[in-house]
Amino acid sequence: MAVHPLWEKYPDLKKDLIETKKVMDKSVKIRNKDITQALQLFFEAGGKLLRPAYFLLFSKFGDADMPEKKAHRVAASLEILHVATLVHDDIIDDSPMRRSLPSIQATYGQDIAVYTGDFLFTVYFHLLATSTRSFRTIEMNANSMKRILVGELDQMNLRFNTKITVKQYFQHIKGKTAQLFEFACFEGAHFSDSSKMVQLTAKRIGYNIGMAFQIMDDILDYKATESDMQKPVFEDLKNGYYTLPLILAMEKHHEEFAPYLEKRTDLSDTELQEVRDLIAKYEGIEKAEAIAERFTDRALAGIKKLPDREEKEILYDITATLLKRNN
Amino acid sequence: MAVHPLWEKYPDLKKDLIETKKVMDKSVKIRNKDITQALQLFFEAGGKLLRPAYFLLFSKFGDADMPEKKAHRVAASLEILHVATLVHDDIIDDSPMRRSLPSIQATYGQDIAVYTGDFLFTVYFHLLATSTRSFRTIEMNANSMKRILVGELDQMNLRFNTKITVKQYFQHIKGKTAQLFEFACFEGAHFSDSSKMVQLTAKRIGYNIGMAFQIMDDILDYKATESDMQKPVFEDLKNGYYTLPLILAMEKHHEEFAPYLEKRTDLSDTELQEVRDLIAKYEGIEKAEAIAERFTDRALAGIKKLPDREEKEILYDITATLLKRNN
Repeated sequence: MAVHPLWEKYPDLKKDLIETKKVMDKSVKIRNKDITQALQLFFEAGGKLLRPAYFLLFSKFGDADMPEKKAHRVAASLEILHVATLVHDDIIDDSPMRRSLPSIQATYGQDIAVYTGDFLFTVYFHLLATSTRSFRTIEMNANSMKRILVGELDQMNLRFNTKITVKQYFQHIKGKTAQLFEFACFEGAHFSDSSKMVQLTAKRIGYNIGMAFQIMDDILDYKATESDMQKPVFEDLKNGYYTLPLILAMEKHHEEFAPYLEKRTDLSDTELQEVRDLIAKYEGIEKAEAIAERFTDRALAGIKKLPDREEKEILYDITATLLKRNN
Repeated sequence: MAVHPLWEKYPDLKKDLIETKKVMDKSVKIRNKDITQALQLFFEAGGKLLRPAYFLLFSKFGDADMPEKKAHRVAASLEILHVATLVHDDIIDDSPMRRSLPSIQATYGQDIAVYTGDFLFTVYFHLLATSTRSFRTIEMNANSMKRILVGELDQMNLRFNTKITVKQYFQHIKGKTAQLFEFACFEGAHFSDSSKMVQLTAKRIGYNIGMAFQIMDDILDYKATESDMQKPVFEDLKNGYYTLPLILAMEKHHEEFAPYLEKRTDLSDTELQEVRDLIAKYEGIEKAEAIAERFTDRALAGIKKLPDREEKEILYDITATLLKRNN
């Protein structure tokens, strides 16, 4: 079993992530073999396991050493929750591909995709229920999951909304992405009984990582070409998700963008290119990158404040690597 | 606030169900007002609240009186879980109507319906997490939810399978429907700390109610006319869900049904009527009704074995009423 090359430099973490993946594989074994196989293939296809990794790293800052098996189960639960939302996102976006594989919905249809996502929510819930003896943890998980879904519903509400503000965009990506990063970091610190100070710092670090991560992902949709991303570009624009580069470029030039956006899903390839050119003209990408960098800097500053441990270096290292990608 | 007329005869239970509904209404209040309103309208539209009712009735057989507020929250969690599966079922079946209202997916599109169902799963999880202090309960809930989803995935697997057996059908409806009835009854008994014997009996009663309930619902799809059901008939057949009346009629006459079923979704109204006539000829409905009655009888026999309480009479009464409907 292999994990993403990102982890090669950290043998202990790599070992833990391999164990986490084993838990994930086992947790989706059901009598419906098609689904089991599809999910295992998906797990194998190179997700970075970022949320488990952050959870595991932050679980080393406490006084109480968390039993390894328990740590792997909680780490797995976080990734399973993430995959559940991906499977459902692919229905919404009608995405043909995910991680260079056909998406569950493209292979089995939207019906199976709906239930597969639901099934993963139950797996998450089950993994969690069987690995904690803290009601506070259960309650925090429930809260966190709720915020993620409210974030997804925000996104639906904001679709094709040409008046979308930076504030609305932030609120949305906070729920959709930053919440789970924040929670993964916090849960690691909390589970291992680290100081309140470390728990709070972990939370803020996770939030900043999540925000930077999502903004950079949204930038990629305008920057990347099909060949280097293995996913089609302009997906967000075509689907009516107006993200930061567009929002910032549009701020003072709304009238120039309006005729394009009014066409909603009917934008031709040439028109999409023209929108991209407009975004370039008004420096939407540069401005969005500057904001992402601010979040990244805050995350890294937070990490510097953590107590000195081997894991602190790793956290700094991977966060810097992750958030400077393609720069 | 009103509840289904079924409960008028039982003022205490009615009061509890009104409180349960208040919890449900409150639990879906989010900043996305459209969704809140749609769900509250849906709750108002006359669901019977059967699962909460069974939970509440079985919660009176223990020594420990459950705090009322806690009981209403758990009761609400069961109904919310049920509604979550309904919202997603309507995506699968592309159902235009539910409880005489346009379905969430018909009103807001499948995208919103996916996230609305997901959101309800988180509400369920949250209600539960904030009303129990028993890890066993959390774990049982997680297990139960998992079985429901495996049941839904079975259904997908069995779609358009003309070789479907009674055993496969039973396995599927056990997960899809009986599981939650079983769990609602059991959870009531368990929460109130009733004897192991009562807990086990509650579980079996719930199972038998759920099986009878689903078989009767499946029969209705062949028996009812649009006017008296407020939902289109033959829905199951058209969607490739081959249920008990068809399975039993087809058992020894597969070759007569095969030419119709091969057409899958392309059956004309005349052909659907012909399938119905074939089912009548081979007494599919009568045979299915006989089996439903067996489950009903087992449920009623189980209820008779319960300790004497006022709630025992109510349980008997409503179960008999519920499962003899339209007979």
